[in-house]
Amino acid sequence: MEIEYHGGEPEPGTVYLVGSGPGDPGLLTVKAKRLLERADVVLHDKLPGPEILGDLPDERCIDVGKRAHGDRTPQSEINERLVELADEGKSVVRLKGGDSFVFGRGGEEAEYLAEHGVPFEVVPAVTSAVAAPAVAGIPVTHRDHASSVSFVTGHEDPTKEDSAVDWDALATAGGTIVVLMGVTRLPQYVTALQEGGMDPETPAALVERGTWQEQRVATGTLETIVDARDEVGIEPPAVTVIGDVAASRESVVEFLENE
Amino acid sequence: MEIEYHGGEPEPGTVYLVGSGPGDPGLLTVKAKRLLERADVVLHDKLPGPEILGDLPDERCIDVGKRAHGDRTPQSEINERLVELADEGKSVVRLKGGDSFVFGRGGEEAEYLAEHGVPFEVVPAVTSAVAAPAVAGIPVTHRDHASSVSFVTGHEDPTKEDSAVDWDALATAGGTIVVLMGVTRLPQYVTALQEGGMDPETPAALVERGTWQEQRVATGTLETIVDARDEVGIEPPAVTVIGDVAASRESVVEFLENE
Repeated sequence: MEIEYHGGEPEPGTVYLVGSGPGDPGLLTVKAKRLLERADVVLHDKLPGPEILGDLPDERCIDVGKRAHGDRTPQSEINERLVELADEGKSVVRLKGGDSFVFGRGGEEAEYLAEHGVPFEVVPAVTSAVAAPAVAGIPVTHRDHASSVSFVTGHEDPTKEDSAVDWDALATAGGTIVVLMGVTRLPQYVTALQEGGMDPETPAALVERGTWQEQRVATGTLETIVDARDEVGIEPPAVTVIGDVAASRESVVEFLENE
Repeated sequence: MEIEYHGGEPEPGTVYLVGSGPGDPGLLTVKAKRLLERADVVLHDKLPGPEILGDLPDERCIDVGKRAHGDRTPQSEINERLVELADEGKSVVRLKGGDSFVFGRGGEEAEYLAEHGVPFEVVPAVTSAVAAPAVAGIPVTHRDHASSVSFVTGHEDPTKEDSAVDWDALATAGGTIVVLMGVTRLPQYVTALQEGGMDPETPAALVERGTWQEQRVATGTLETIVDARDEVGIEPPAVTVIGDVAASRESVVEFLENE
């Protein structure tokens, strides 16, 4: 038998804001896969990962992550490019790693497209914030010890006066905290959370390249996770999980077939 | 061209904890779709939705949502059933709506399987917490006005003394709040958030059956969203979004092709 699906046929002059998921091609959605296979142009950066990008033909792809001298293409230029291509009548996929609307700037792209009268569709994806912990045996919520989960970006310096992330509130909220893009600033925010009153014994884990073949995991507590990171040699991209759920891995990993 | 994927071949004696995504069959992952098509048995409730469930052949499906006299099958019975089927050498898909590890009790099932020596795999999915707002034009994070997002369950009564969700901390954290399963208790937690210091003018939205053909949306503010819910007649299952991002819908909806 087959589960039927008749969508995913790209329309000319339309932009598709598509997330690739965490990197495993099996975690692309059926719709994202069809759009990628059929759209006239795909604008992407490096985060969808080598397995997904490797199958896309170069002649339909524009790498908007790369730029001369190691710079990244500015968001304003990407926005303009999307409008130009749609105005030429092309069907355009804007492909991001993870989900476009979870720290992926998809919201800004949607606003720009609407301002310029370009029809667009949002294609939600598996977010790495949930999937990277999951495949390492860590559920971000748990009936017994996590009735909320917060996703934050670790790009920002938590010692900055005007830090947009309220680490004190997160420290007291009692749920799981998942930090995306938080490898480098790990020492700063584990300190901020302890200063905010979080127990230093709170379990913590880092999952690098979750769902990729190169996946690596480091575990510890709020107090020891920086050392664990350095010992395993965790590098970006990685997801940090802080909360009692992070200890779940230990009790299930022996029978977990994802790794 | 085609994006290659060689996984998704179910192994005998293994349980697959699979999320269906928010309901649109196009938002199943490639891996979930293959496993559903090929597994010996699929245990599911109603939440994956009629479009996905309708394509699965009855003889391979066990509905563990239903039970005599309108009761639900207890979790302990589902756990035991999973172990039994795996011990018989069957390949078993445990299918949940959304993602199994976001308020889906997948963590408990994983623990039970590991305790009983049953090999299992986690297949992450598109969570409705992100996807339902997204297809209604609402990004749960935004560079300009939301550097964090918290998912909470609305099943619990926020006026309960021992409520596991800290609404006061959420009210001050400053990020987006997404409440799952929170249609009925909406009046209680919008009050709790205002008592916690959240501006009554904070934008809010409800998305019922996001990505389904029957999708419905109600918008307002913390102060008006209960009336908006009643006016549109929003019913479960629905997702509530609270935060500045909820106002984004208005500026993009004219060009949004998802609806």
